[in-house]
Amino acid sequence: MTEDTTGADGGESAARPFSFRLLATDGTARRGEITTPHGVVRTPAFMPVGTQGTVKAMFMDDVRATGADVVLGNTYHLMLRPGAERVAALGGLHRFANWPHTILTDSGGFQVMSLAQLRKLDETGVTFQSHIDGRRYELTPERSIEIQGLLGSDIQMQLDECVRLPAPPAEVERGMRLSLRWADRSRRAFEAMGGPGKGQGLYGIVQGGDVPALRAESARALAAMPFEGYSVGGLAVGEPQAVMLAMIEVVEPLLPVDKPRYLMGVGTPDDILESVARGIDQFDCVMPTRAGRHGLAYTRFGKLNFRNARHADDPRPIDPESSCPAARDYSRAYLHHLVRTGEALGAMLLTWVNVDYYQRLMQGARDAIEAGRYADYVAETKDGWRRGEG
Amino acid sequence: MTEDTTGADGGESAARPFSFRLLATDGTARRGEITTPHGVVRTPAFMPVGTQGTVKAMFMDDVRATGADVVLGNTYHLMLRPGAERVAALGGLHRFANWPHTILTDSGGFQVMSLAQLRKLDETGVTFQSHIDGRRYELTPERSIEIQGLLGSDIQMQLDECVRLPAPPAEVERGMRLSLRWADRSRRAFEAMGGPGKGQGLYGIVQGGDVPALRAESARALAAMPFEGYSVGGLAVGEPQAVMLAMIEVVEPLLPVDKPRYLMGVGTPDDILESVARGIDQFDCVMPTRAGRHGLAYTRFGKLNFRNARHADDPRPIDPESSCPAARDYSRAYLHHLVRTGEALGAMLLTWVNVDYYQRLMQGARDAIEAGRYADYVAETKDGWRRGEG
Repeated sequence: MTEDTTGADGGESAARPFSFRLLATDGTARRGEITTPHGVVRTPAFMPVGTQGTVKAMFMDDVRATGADVVLGNTYHLMLRPGAERVAALGGLHRFANWPHTILTDSGGFQVMSLAQLRKLDETGVTFQSHIDGRRYELTPERSIEIQGLLGSDIQMQLDECVRLPAPPAEVERGMRLSLRWADRSRRAFEAMGGPGKGQGLYGIVQGGDVPALRAESARALAAMPFEGYSVGGLAVGEPQAVMLAMIEVVEPLLPVDKPRYLMGVGTPDDILESVARGIDQFDCVMPTRAGRHGLAYTRFGKLNFRNARHADDPRPIDPESSCPAARDYSRAYLHHLVRTGEALGAMLLTWVNVDYYQRLMQGARDAIEAGRYADYVAETKDGWRRGEG
Repeated sequence: MTEDTTGADGGESAARPFSFRLLATDGTARRGEITTPHGVVRTPAFMPVGTQGTVKAMFMDDVRATGADVVLGNTYHLMLRPGAERVAALGGLHRFANWPHTILTDSGGFQVMSLAQLRKLDETGVTFQSHIDGRRYELTPERSIEIQGLLGSDIQMQLDECVRLPAPPAEVERGMRLSLRWADRSRRAFEAMGGPGKGQGLYGIVQGGDVPALRAESARALAAMPFEGYSVGGLAVGEPQAVMLAMIEVVEPLLPVDKPRYLMGVGTPDDILESVARGIDQFDCVMPTRAGRHGLAYTRFGKLNFRNARHADDPRPIDPESSCPAARDYSRAYLHHLVRTGEALGAMLLTWVNVDYYQRLMQGARDAIEAGRYADYVAETKDGWRRGEG
């Protein structure tokens, strides 16, 4: 155990080094535990997205109470506002956002490609204009790691290039190879900047689009490098679920069994259950939070759309058996009213319902893997969605 | 004590009849207690505004924890969406909004005049088109009382006409006299519909614009009618504070000492302190909630504007000595960041800060009146605002 302090956030006296323990398997599904300087992450884990240092429309105490062990922060957004150096001066992202538990950050690359203007990508990195004020920025593998270090992120991502699908195989190949070179530079930067000494982890990101041979090459090359974990990137970007699952099946056997695997940006509850079955340990997605702001609730009975007038006179809560106050203590009629009138409380309650449901789903998955009944759990859960409320 | 149940909300087995006790006075300032079927309201009281059955961007549990004994619901908004009959079928507004404490409703008249389209007012009442879908509605004194009864409101308001200032005295007089006739019809309707038997209260509303003689006539006429309380309406609509206070000074000696007085739609912390000094017991205003959504915080140091860049690097909370988590546990830099990025959490936290501050202000006023030091309390509080943080 290193004696280095975590520094930035000041909340820990000594960094616990990044580690992963595999506790149980059930087929390819894995039950594990990631330890970071800010706590233990029970896997399979769903990580609520806190893009700008806040899980939209929720108090962090409530996020934690749903059972979330880790939230995600977006490097692109945070480097623009409030700025990584500023967050560091304020004590790091944990303190800034009132989240003393584990934080994972992405590299910023994906959002540069989807949000920024006048992007120019070359071997060095990517230059772009902020979508907010047009200011010019440069993001290189080294700068991304520096920013993630300034934020104090426990689990960091290499900078990669995520080629948008569909794309010609040659283009997918170019992006995958560039990502491998950036993986190497990211790793060097991470070590030069003291990430391992702070107990933090850096994940390499498997790319290769929908081309199995490229996915395999990427996974093999990254597995040979000393990362604390491995991400699967460039999926859930519009391709059919079957393609996504096929790519996971190509990659999974090539990744080290003793390192966590993170499927980036995934997904629906169904995507998650299927991916856990194929050996994925970590997930993040804006779906539960975004859906909550749009009047949609994820429940064990399937999806409920509170814009729909059929809820207008319904005195029942979403789920009387839920331990989540938002799902248990408010009538559907009231939720419908809040959504229809555009009241903030509607977004607050439905976001809470969804973040809670995703955590219940993961807790169920973890319990089922431990009990050796994961396939049954998946079948029962999907049956619940299909049955609805009868 | 009546044996009638409160009916609609079902949360109480027997209605406590409306009553008011005067506990202490300090000059003209009064410390009292209103009892309603849903609890005790400590006065002077500030009532957070819950226009559409929600205090915008807050959980009701947090509203209650700030010390609020009563919230206000708006008849105009609730009659349009979700509809009074629907709320009644769902168990009343207390249950609908998860607020088991006292609820006060306005009559709907003020918002018809400020929000609705194609208004037509005559002796009978007012017809208008909904600002939402253009549907036609009629609001009469009787229908307003019926709606407030369907909502299950503990403290109801007569329908009145609030003439917009500046206006010719003859127009102010016409509106005041119409309001007196509507006061009589409202009272008859309230009794015919069983409001007193349910322990509810109905307030008459003093009108008369900025004309002292008309204010006095209105107050005298209403005082002769059997209302449970008296409102002062048609103020804080743009006139100087001095005019508002002068009107209160005209009206106050004419109102029964053993009934609560409610100054509608007021106001700033300064307005409230000055009005309490002149014998007002109840207040409501959108200011703390609206300001919170616009990045403004009311504090014992005065107003803070979190849009201002001077907060960007400030690690201090708003008030480390506050018992309100929103004021105590988040840095000003973070609040600035949330406001600048338009994050919902910014509105959630600053609304909470403001609702809490208004309740602290009222608690301080109540304590000071009991201790016979209200004038000192006002001076100290204003000094705190002036001094800022030194």
